Amino acid sequence: MTDAIAPVLEALSTRFGERFSVSHALREQHGRGESHHTSAVPDAVVFAETTEEVSEIVTLCAAAGVPVIAFGAGTSLEGHLAAVNGGVSIDLSRMSEVLRVSADDLDCTVQAGVTREQLNTHLRDVGLFFPIDPGANASVGGMAATRASGTNAVRYGTMRENVLSLTVVLPSGQIIRTGGRARKSSAGYDLTRLFVGSEGTLGIITEVTLRLYGIPETISAALCSFESVEQAVAAAIAVVQLGIPVARMELMDRGLIAAVNAYSHLSLKIEDTLAFEFHGSPAGVREQVEMVAAIVEENGGKDFEWANAPEERNRLWKARHNAFYAIVSQRPNAKGWSSDVCVPVSQLGACILDTRELLRNCSVPAAILGHVGDGNYHVVFAVDPTNKQELDEVAAINSKMVEYAISVGGTSTGEHGVGTGKIKYLRKEHGDAVDLMAVIKNAIDPNGIMNPGKMLPH
Amino acid sequence: MTDAIAPVLEALSTRFGERFSVSHALREQHGRGESHHTSAVPDAVVFAETTEEVSEIVTLCAAAGVPVIAFGAGTSLEGHLAAVNGGVSIDLSRMSEVLRVSADDLDCTVQAGVTREQLNTHLRDVGLFFPIDPGANASVGGMAATRASGTNAVRYGTMRENVLSLTVVLPSGQIIRTGGRARKSSAGYDLTRLFVGSEGTLGIITEVTLRLYGIPETISAALCSFESVEQAVAAAIAVVQLGIPVARMELMDRGLIAAVNAYSHLSLKIEDTLAFEFHGSPAGVREQVEMVAAIVEENGGKDFEWANAPEERNRLWKARHNAFYAIVSQRPNAKGWSSDVCVPVSQLGACILDTRELLRNCSVPAAILGHVGDGNYHVVFAVDPTNKQELDEVAAINSKMVEYAISVGGTSTGEHGVGTGKIKYLRKEHGDAVDLMAVIKNAIDPNGIMNPGKMLPH
Repeated sequence: MTDAIAPVLEALSTRFGERFSVSHALREQHGRGESHHTSAVPDAVVFAETTEEVSEIVTLCAAAGVPVIAFGAGTSLEGHLAAVNGGVSIDLSRMSEVLRVSADDLDCTVQAGVTREQLNTHLRDVGLFFPIDPGANASVGGMAATRASGTNAVRYGTMRENVLSLTVVLPSGQIIRTGGRARKSSAGYDLTRLFVGSEGTLGIITEVTLRLYGIPETISAALCSFESVEQAVAAAIAVVQLGIPVARMELMDRGLIAAVNAYSHLSLKIEDTLAFEFHGSPAGVREQVEMVAAIVEENGGKDFEWANAPEERNRLWKARHNAFYAIVSQRPNAKGWSSDVCVPVSQLGACILDTRELLRNCSVPAAILGHVGDGNYHVVFAVDPTNKQELDEVAAINSKMVEYAISVGGTSTGEHGVGTGKIKYLRKEHGDAVDLMAVIKNAIDPNGIMNPGKMLPH
Repeated sequence: MTDAIAPVLEALSTRFGERFSVSHALREQHGRGESHHTSAVPDAVVFAETTEEVSEIVTLCAAAGVPVIAFGAGTSLEGHLAAVNGGVSIDLSRMSEVLRVSADDLDCTVQAGVTREQLNTHLRDVGLFFPIDPGANASVGGMAATRASGTNAVRYGTMRENVLSLTVVLPSGQIIRTGGRARKSSAGYDLTRLFVGSEGTLGIITEVTLRLYGIPETISAALCSFESVEQAVAAAIAVVQLGIPVARMELMDRGLIAAVNAYSHLSLKIEDTLAFEFHGSPAGVREQVEMVAAIVEENGGKDFEWANAPEERNRLWKARHNAFYAIVSQRPNAKGWSSDVCVPVSQLGACILDTRELLRNCSVPAAILGHVGDGNYHVVFAVDPTNKQELDEVAAINSKMVEYAISVGGTSTGEHGVGTGKIKYLRKEHGDAVDLMAVIKNAIDPNGIMNPGKMLPH
């Protein structure tokens, strides 16, 4: 590799000047996400500013067989950014322009490096918002690449449902658009959905056209505590099964509440909790609240604590979004290991109880949280990344949790992606369909330069 | 081909007995859909009853390079069923079992030959329904293969959003499942969405897992007439832009209303009309109706005519569903030519006005109708398929309409698919992305046996 890569790095350096770097600190930062996964430093980092520049970089790298790894906001949780075969990290964070907003069509086009918070700040004045919210202030390109979702998905869907089209640089350097701006189309293969969730292994997403929504007339949030996780999950399942269009419905177990209180300086009741958000007209929200209140009461939940003022709501959701960091901060020098499964909602109670059993004797601080309306939940562990025994212990729990989820028709990852962390479960989950994925990968990226070592087993 | 196919037909005949046929009438019926497109008869028809049988048939055909074409209910409108290179039509209509319904998870798994009416009859007793409704009583497999949608898509999405996973027989005969039953997943390439809309060119869909919905507590339908199509479209756009969650919002121009009255023995007011359906709680429906009524009034619409009793509603929507047949029946021996574009909703008014101008001097009976909430509309022409001049005239109008739609960011087909009819627009719509589609096609079906001559330009 060293022989092949040297002239590529020289050419990139000449072309991009100060936007090209081989500084160790920068490379180190680009070779890891926010999780415990082992990092692997790329040989260089280039800051691209346009789709055409990404195409130039990929073309240069392709000619020499040098790997390319796209970097957005660096919030990956499954090792997507590790340059396991070296190569060039293409940093898209300077591609941060909102290119177009159409209030009439409820859509927009942004460069891949725009973050979700930046987008929503931009949209606020026109009364619109983009609902997909993975917690971290991820880049829209990264969210598309991992098929992200988060707290609002129960009502608004995931990146799968909310990306209208993409601009993508293919492994050849060719630039394509995967679709137009119509809400629906039957014209050809769904390339948009092929690239959404492809984790940079088929091409690099440089622009994203998204669906937007009007900011609801009324937004109301509430916490509701339960004596047990079982009761909280039972209430959540009933809400889903009755089709009540809650905008958010989040499970936080009592361990998480304690960690969040400490981290975010709150004084939430330390009990197993469901956090709700309701969107709609005043009458619509009232109706949803009444239905949910009845379900909560039937399942032993206690009074709603309301957070209706925008600043209270923001504090609540910010605390929820910081749950990962709250758990990790419980231990000095710890790293977060966030596992992520999603199951049919009828199986959610049994799965979460099984996971609690697995955690009963766990030596590492851990908490359960979840987007339970979708059947999606996480365990966040605060691990010492230098302690092999501890990593093995968490790996064993994680495997059991993932295998249980797959055994009931669920998935090894609801929203974090495969990266390096979930590769070993892919065949268990998809069987021979993995071979078809490999056929597609090899056809589009025959030299294997796009984010190698991710997603597909060898 | 004749030399290669003879032993395949013999083997199929031996294996499938009476379920194999070379009768000309049957082959002729299997080589065409419901449109004006030229039919092309397959060499034989086999009625498959299981996924494994489909795999057997495909394996036999693949070994000899014989084309295979899946046949569901035969309701294609873009020539998908024409055996342009001969081959074997695999009729899936006997794969008509609803395999599983989960009321708890709001999902079900059906064999590909189940029709949407059959499924909804099956679901009625458990209080659930499957909303995707293309008008024709299509098979669920065919609807998945063409990425169908229809009247309810404005509220419930299309087959893209409502298929959870598929069982597919690949060109090698291998059987795969494209996903599990979780509502969302980030585990690997989105094979489900790759096959949804692939028109039988990558594999044969044999089972479909679908999202279901609770039958709404309140359903209300209404017609509302306008003095011009412009006014009707303006009202529809305003409803979309305000995010009112109407379940259906259909444009029928006055020509269509006249045809529908004659065909379905109705006496609807012969004016440009919007037909609405509202789903929700009593209060929710009341609120939607009030908001829509205000918009309609602002745009010069006249009083709502309500159709709230189930039988009245059914009569209304049945009449709407029969619109295609109503237009075609205006002329003896005519065939229907239904064009289908979809545009960003802000462009819908201009597009429909442009289409009306194109129709002004058209010598063939034609009407405009549309799922206007999605920006999707059709022109149905009743053509004499033996009259070349007439076909050329309609083809020219169709081309202008499609090219206008593409020029404003829309698509050449919102829901009918590409088939043979829209191939020539694919590159105009998708540019170089068509080459990527061909790469995928060639990788998965290197011998080109899956429904050849469809979707992709040569």
